[in-house]
Amino acid sequence: MTFGIDDLPVRDELRGKSPYGAPQLDVPVRLNTNENPYPLPEALVERITERVREAARDLNRYPDRDAVELRAKLAEYLTKTSGYAVDTRDVWAANGSNEVIQQLLQTFGGPGRTAIGFEPSYSMHGLIARGTGTGWISGPRHDDFTIDVPAAEKAVAEHRPDVVFITTPNNPTGTAVPAETVLALYDAAQATKPSMVVVDEAYVEFSHGASLLPLLAGRPNLVISRTMSKAFGAAGLRLGYLAAHPAVVDAVQLVRLPYHLSAVTQATALAALEHTDTLLKYVEQLKTERDRLVAELRATGYEVTESDANFVQFGRFADSHAVWQKILDRGVLVRDNGVPGWLRVTTGTPEENDAFLDAAREVQRCVGDTPAPPKEQDA
Amino acid sequence: MTFGIDDLPVRDELRGKSPYGAPQLDVPVRLNTNENPYPLPEALVERITERVREAARDLNRYPDRDAVELRAKLAEYLTKTSGYAVDTRDVWAANGSNEVIQQLLQTFGGPGRTAIGFEPSYSMHGLIARGTGTGWISGPRHDDFTIDVPAAEKAVAEHRPDVVFITTPNNPTGTAVPAETVLALYDAAQATKPSMVVVDEAYVEFSHGASLLPLLAGRPNLVISRTMSKAFGAAGLRLGYLAAHPAVVDAVQLVRLPYHLSAVTQATALAALEHTDTLLKYVEQLKTERDRLVAELRATGYEVTESDANFVQFGRFADSHAVWQKILDRGVLVRDNGVPGWLRVTTGTPEENDAFLDAAREVQRCVGDTPAPPKEQDA
Repeated sequence: MTFGIDDLPVRDELRGKSPYGAPQLDVPVRLNTNENPYPLPEALVERITERVREAARDLNRYPDRDAVELRAKLAEYLTKTSGYAVDTRDVWAANGSNEVIQQLLQTFGGPGRTAIGFEPSYSMHGLIARGTGTGWISGPRHDDFTIDVPAAEKAVAEHRPDVVFITTPNNPTGTAVPAETVLALYDAAQATKPSMVVVDEAYVEFSHGASLLPLLAGRPNLVISRTMSKAFGAAGLRLGYLAAHPAVVDAVQLVRLPYHLSAVTQATALAALEHTDTLLKYVEQLKTERDRLVAELRATGYEVTESDANFVQFGRFADSHAVWQKILDRGVLVRDNGVPGWLRVTTGTPEENDAFLDAAREVQRCVGDTPAPPKEQDA
Repeated sequence: MTFGIDDLPVRDELRGKSPYGAPQLDVPVRLNTNENPYPLPEALVERITERVREAARDLNRYPDRDAVELRAKLAEYLTKTSGYAVDTRDVWAANGSNEVIQQLLQTFGGPGRTAIGFEPSYSMHGLIARGTGTGWISGPRHDDFTIDVPAAEKAVAEHRPDVVFITTPNNPTGTAVPAETVLALYDAAQATKPSMVVVDEAYVEFSHGASLLPLLAGRPNLVISRTMSKAFGAAGLRLGYLAAHPAVVDAVQLVRLPYHLSAVTQATALAALEHTDTLLKYVEQLKTERDRLVAELRATGYEVTESDANFVQFGRFADSHAVWQKILDRGVLVRDNGVPGWLRVTTGTPEENDAFLDAAREVQRCVGDTPAPPKEQDA
């Protein structure tokens, strides 16, 4: 018998659990973690190198604890792309949007408090809630994965959660949430006591519609969270951020670990923000490819959820894991997110998408894997 | 009235609190945050640049979630400097030792559990305990700031904490903890139920004695935490790590945020680990300067706590904050850690230390600031 996790005095709720994470398999085409397929342009790589060299010369000193320059540039980016004026004081940054969410839950959730999300959605919301001792409530969605507003309002009224998560575009299903839905849930969340509403816009740059940033005006309990992982093509950088009332930014500083954001992370993010225009051109290419994936999957006979993200949810399958394996056997790794009957594919380069579509067409022809007819299922 | 933190639905225990952190003042000589005064050598800056350039070319991809290469090199460093064989599976890394401690408390502490530290010690242990919902117990020390072993054993037996923190060399007081003390407290912590013992060795490279890593053998509930901030001269990098039984490493992976450690952080740390020999030479210079600070402060008439760290605690003062201000008036920023009667100065370059010692001698001459005679106070 090997000494293992359960032989240690770990918290009871961790016993028997496994770490989060997609399988990392060595496969020619990896379309499973919603990464941007385009490497950073070489000019940006050189600019990162320059800024990191400068930062490295001062690396014996602690980084700027408040990341003021970086927050100013993120505020500029948000202002420029949304038309809504965002100030440095409205922005906070951390190691990935996961850490942003963790800090929000440490501030506004935690022991004796609860958070709600409408599932299926980004599973880390619930996992980070658990990690911060926040009770987790799984709220409802319609069968087409849009939020069932009356049912969601009812769940908020019933459970009176301290934090409400709304992911738009939703992950892993892909559809954006209308502003009216967010407004309805914000109002519901303030009805009996003030609660925070966190709108996770990790994929918003890929959306057909606009960011919900303008909703921040006059709503101090609203938070918009963002990331540089997707639109900026910088998943390896781990830079998440939020925009909210300055009081929210002050509040998360009570729980953030001091000097949480390294000088090299700040330098690299600042370099990437100098190249926003180029990076947003890649986003346009990816949106075109995403729309092609949706159209061709539908033409092949799959059911596809409306996508405003850089990924596409497709189905339906009696056994989605078996289909996942068949696609993998053809050299393409997609994601089995545990949504029964569905799989998720990330938009890759045109070549990667062709490889995926070829695999999807082949699998479609296999006996026993025929997707259930959409009309019957959607009835 | 401006809308502020207390107008938000923050957790009750956060109301009225201020963020952790030393004042960041623009002063010629800053000896307040235990930074290494030596910038990284230019050859290492170039190596960082090379490794980050390589990492930036793959930045659109998530980083290695398990940081295997980095953990292997950290294990090599520990093995080489301690003589105790440490394997990759025994090592875990995170964004600063603060995040390491947070992950440990999320795994082994948390709501309904408690942690103990012997104070004064590194104040983040208690603050991170609070941030993770872990109850905090302040354990005792002798008047000379060494751990009062019988009193500490009694506190452990009485409170039955789930996590015991031992900082060696202790911060902010500076003295190393003997192995026998750690062993006694480890045994006390296992007496009624298994509890984790976390030995925080952030400053151990500056110690007159050896690391306590060999104590890990046969003690699966023992954790040694380390950092690259001090000995590696890389406070800006935010790289903390731990060594422990592989089951502990497996367990913290249940709470770590996925992809918590960015590709640029991993690349920069790997570059620094290639230059260990050079960086450890700076450590030797700093130890010599630290011993000089101790000797000269004593010769000037100050009382000085034994130091195994890169900082020195000196006193005693009827009003330590007034003395802090007088030293600051002379262009030198030291740390007022809130230990009544004492201040802490970081070992700087020889020139910085001279500037501090000049200021300390001048302040000594001021009427009303004469330290209380050590003999009377220590009686």
